Amino acid sequence: MLPRGFAAEGVDCGIRLTGMNATLAEVGEFPIIDRITKGLVRGPGVSVGPGDDAAVVSVDGSLVVSTDVMNENVHFRMDWCSPSDVGRRCIAAGVGDIEAMGAIPTAVVVALSLPSITEVSWIDKFMEGVTSECEAANVCLVGGDLSSASMISVAVTAMGETRGRSVIHRGGAQAGDLIAYKGRLGWASAGLAVLSRGFRSPRAVVSAYQVPKVAYGAGIEAARNGASSLIDTSDGLVADLGHIARRSSVIMDLDSKALPIAEPLAAVAQATGKNPMEFLLAGGEDHALVGTFSLGQVPQSWTVIGRVEPLTGRDPGVYLDGEQWVGERGWTHF
Amino acid sequence: MLPRGFAAEGVDCGIRLTGMNATLAEVGEFPIIDRITKGLVRGPGVSVGPGDDAAVVSVDGSLVVSTDVMNENVHFRMDWCSPSDVGRRCIAAGVGDIEAMGAIPTAVVVALSLPSITEVSWIDKFMEGVTSECEAANVCLVGGDLSSASMISVAVTAMGETRGRSVIHRGGAQAGDLIAYKGRLGWASAGLAVLSRGFRSPRAVVSAYQVPKVAYGAGIEAARNGASSLIDTSDGLVADLGHIARRSSVIMDLDSKALPIAEPLAAVAQATGKNPMEFLLAGGEDHALVGTFSLGQVPQSWTVIGRVEPLTGRDPGVYLDGEQWVGERGWTHF
Repeated sequence: MLPRGFAAEGVDCGIRLTGMNATLAEVGEFPIIDRITKGLVRGPGVSVGPGDDAAVVSVDGSLVVSTDVMNENVHFRMDWCSPSDVGRRCIAAGVGDIEAMGAIPTAVVVALSLPSITEVSWIDKFMEGVTSECEAANVCLVGGDLSSASMISVAVTAMGETRGRSVIHRGGAQAGDLIAYKGRLGWASAGLAVLSRGFRSPRAVVSAYQVPKVAYGAGIEAARNGASSLIDTSDGLVADLGHIARRSSVIMDLDSKALPIAEPLAAVAQATGKNPMEFLLAGGEDHALVGTFSLGQVPQSWTVIGRVEPLTGRDPGVYLDGEQWVGERGWTHF
Repeated sequence: MLPRGFAAEGVDCGIRLTGMNATLAEVGEFPIIDRITKGLVRGPGVSVGPGDDAAVVSVDGSLVVSTDVMNENVHFRMDWCSPSDVGRRCIAAGVGDIEAMGAIPTAVVVALSLPSITEVSWIDKFMEGVTSECEAANVCLVGGDLSSASMISVAVTAMGETRGRSVIHRGGAQAGDLIAYKGRLGWASAGLAVLSRGFRSPRAVVSAYQVPKVAYGAGIEAARNGASSLIDTSDGLVADLGHIARRSSVIMDLDSKALPIAEPLAAVAQATGKNPMEFLLAGGEDHALVGTFSLGQVPQSWTVIGRVEPLTGRDPGVYLDGEQWVGERGWTHF
């Protein structure tokens, strides 16, 4: 008989724990779900939270929704991230996509797959991460699912609302617009380079990889300032600006002088023999927001890094100082 | 370097396929996403579909949302289900939860994790199942994510809207109400019993396990008739009515004469030496809707199977003909 998954339900069973190293299989599914859902705060727009067949959430304007899955040994390694880190980065990545539409994030649901030998303390720490990042992002966890699996997998669906404002597409960049970002560029990928070589410092970049520091609220800030296009740098600055370039049929021309190399990135580049610009241009998972604005419309806390140019016979793409970037990893296709 | 997941984006790359047995690793992620999203129909309420950071969907009333994950060798086995079956049952299970709130399903997002050796033809067939079940359920696939993993995992988040009507909770059943269901009971679990023993017939129950036949539209039908409580039988009739019993502080008393054993279920019970009532009472994954209604309010196409009784000193639970059901698997805790 195959065990079945089940919806998050606040069933009133006691936890039959003998210790914090009890496993999911020993404790049973409903007591774990009860444990997870008991401490959750229900936000003002949530009329039904976990514990019924579905959650009910009010939406002001249109619903903005995105789903992301993160899998063990693909998106994270348990020797590089704590369970709390995994919880935080899954929420951050999900909510980042709502910000990237210029919308206001409101709610998330989390489908969690775990080996049955997972210890209850792992789930507790994972949920600490989920709830603390939800708090930082000002979103409510309104529902979930818990299932056994042969690996750890976390699927987060993030939701937001437009509050009567238009969303910001990828295809709206205009020649003459300025390119600006808010957040961090290259820190997570420098952290990954450090961890991949078995090191744990500089601590600043390792932390940036473990838990991306998303500039929550930057999406609606961009919308208020009339951003013409917007995206989050989950795949890396050049890759993600490439999406805008193709959708908008423009050249995104970055100015290398506007992309200063932060000290920890310079240190990691030197130690690993890499070009530090690789981190800034190609490194993903920082979830910075990058967009395009008319002159005089860039929000004050954003950093201008280039300008949108017309194609003038060229293919849409991303340039650095007027030339296509050909770095160590050969970004000629942008 | 860990490969990263990515959002569903309609990047205009051609498919570099040499044949339909090319794998995900050989074809590359973006061409596959392009292949998946190209044929999708955008529904009337969807202003942004796949291809941006997030989808944008209008919501009439409140948003109703539920997430479900199905994992290989936990919720399905690839020797028992075709890729199309997996796609269909994942959508059916997700949408069933929206129906179970008495709401109107509108949209789904799908996060798909696959081993990189998965063949493109598998994904094509999976997507055929997803789109055909979305069509049956009258919902739009508005976004997704695709990631590599060591096992197949599908996380579906289903969404719906209330259109100004109240949702139906689990806690509203009143003594004197009638218990009624719409859909099938026990068919999927009889099918599972057959497959578990290495057989493939009776075909009717095997199909019912492979693709549950959800009575789409039954949720709003129940809402229009003022159902006092509602749930879908994903965990089995007794288990799910148990949730209503506890939330509503009532006894759910089923009438065995109102639960006739369909011929294929009787055949499977005889062949496997099981009590056929086990299938009806304990078998899950049919996603029938079961709810409670005032006298005279049961919709015509629903089947009355019992009555809600007051506790009169007893613990909330599910009874059969006035007695607690103690079947082969000992359901005394209900």
